[in-house]
Amino acid sequence: MEKLFVIKIGGTAIDDEVQLDSFLRDFANLKEKKILVHGGGKLATDLATKLGIQQQMIDGRRITDAATLDVCTMVYAGLVNKKIVAKLQALGINALGISGADGNCIPAKRRTHGEIDYGFVGDPDDEKINTDLIISVLTQQMLPVFCAITHDGKGNLLNTNADTIAAVLSSALSSYFQVQLVYSFEKDGVLKNINDHQTIISQINREEYLKLKTDKIISNGMIPKMDNAFGAIYKGVRNVFIMNTKDISSLNNITNVKGTKLSLA
Amino acid sequence: MEKLFVIKIGGTAIDDEVQLDSFLRDFANLKEKKILVHGGGKLATDLATKLGIQQQMIDGRRITDAATLDVCTMVYAGLVNKKIVAKLQALGINALGISGADGNCIPAKRRTHGEIDYGFVGDPDDEKINTDLIISVLTQQMLPVFCAITHDGKGNLLNTNADTIAAVLSSALSSYFQVQLVYSFEKDGVLKNINDHQTIISQINREEYLKLKTDKIISNGMIPKMDNAFGAIYKGVRNVFIMNTKDISSLNNITNVKGTKLSLA
Repeated sequence: MEKLFVIKIGGTAIDDEVQLDSFLRDFANLKEKKILVHGGGKLATDLATKLGIQQQMIDGRRITDAATLDVCTMVYAGLVNKKIVAKLQALGINALGISGADGNCIPAKRRTHGEIDYGFVGDPDDEKINTDLIISVLTQQMLPVFCAITHDGKGNLLNTNADTIAAVLSSALSSYFQVQLVYSFEKDGVLKNINDHQTIISQINREEYLKLKTDKIISNGMIPKMDNAFGAIYKGVRNVFIMNTKDISSLNNITNVKGTKLSLA
Repeated sequence: MEKLFVIKIGGTAIDDEVQLDSFLRDFANLKEKKILVHGGGKLATDLATKLGIQQQMIDGRRITDAATLDVCTMVYAGLVNKKIVAKLQALGINALGISGADGNCIPAKRRTHGEIDYGFVGDPDDEKINTDLIISVLTQQMLPVFCAITHDGKGNLLNTNADTIAAVLSSALSSYFQVQLVYSFEKDGVLKNINDHQTIISQINREEYLKLKTDKIISNGMIPKMDNAFGAIYKGVRNVFIMNTKDISSLNNITNVKGTKLSLA
């Protein structure tokens, strides 16, 4: 099977145009087939603040009311997605921006969780990813750029976690490609000591991951990312790399990638 | 050749969710192959006002500075485009939202006009429309939904007139389809007397159009629309209909369409 990188970019690189440009140049130079998934950085929060929309958080998760959903849709599917697409076009990459609603690529279910109403937040229906469309786009030498907006099939858009989107796309495509899922952000990888960048763990397998969780060595912010990563690995994704956006070009030598490599064994 | 409707929706229907829903139901029920092009209504102006971005106009055209371009990108390519796509999905139509940057569908040139700098405003390069991609989307039983954002190939998005987008797409596709271009908005068609809805002109050919212009019977606001329309007709588009958004279902009987029909002879 052909190799496919599914690369998620998040964190400060979305907000900082110099960092973003540098990342996109390195990304454009990656030799294998690839898909980009992006978060929205702080732009959505900034815009909501400017518009006087109050942000509610429960358990560290944003509650997405109708006004907040509009802001997320504008920033993620509009501003950030189209800027990235235009920049990739300038780099000679025929990018195609896609939300989960477009071509019914990522159907999702509105999240219900006991008594907490998260609002317009969706969890992708991982059995219903439109892999035909994604494969058709890749076959036509285009590069899909996904934002983290999905839909419920009833006419509602839903705000969705970008890490989850990347994981779900990777799993769904792992029947067709050797998928390498990459979570890139402003940290160098999974650290044993969050305050010491020298303590990167270079490889983690399933057993070690469970032990790290039990021993509470993995910090709170990293747990959902690792859960997503191992969820994808259980469903057929070959490896997951957690790495710094700056180190993305090291993916060209798959045996010597910077950051943390997660795999089954 | 197969028939293809290229339908542009603009005006108040974009701003009013009830009108939009009603239009989309009628649109979904049109039997032929179709493409939708939408404007942004007043939402972009409203958002710019809320954000304290001053709107500059020269000769009735908005000057698009960087902040205004961001607003247009958020509203047109984000909010409006994805809402329409999600609503069409709920109606059983597999819509795919596309800006001119996506798949390099509509390359454009930044407008220069003597001493006036219109900012990030683009005129489509009508020789370079990516018809292959649009035909591929249609062949895969998807429905392209275009917003009025293009790009210059150098990494910049450009604000573009939605009527022009619809005309340029129609012209480019007229080698492959019998294209029927439809401009729909809140008026019933081209009126002889702008204050009297009973004075709709049901048919206008090229000669009559030139005479109406000379005699100044066509109002200022209608002239660019008619120029776009006849420009498209000269380039192979079969007919252009200028009609009320409410009357769109009359397109199912092409010999008895409400509004004004423009054609060569």
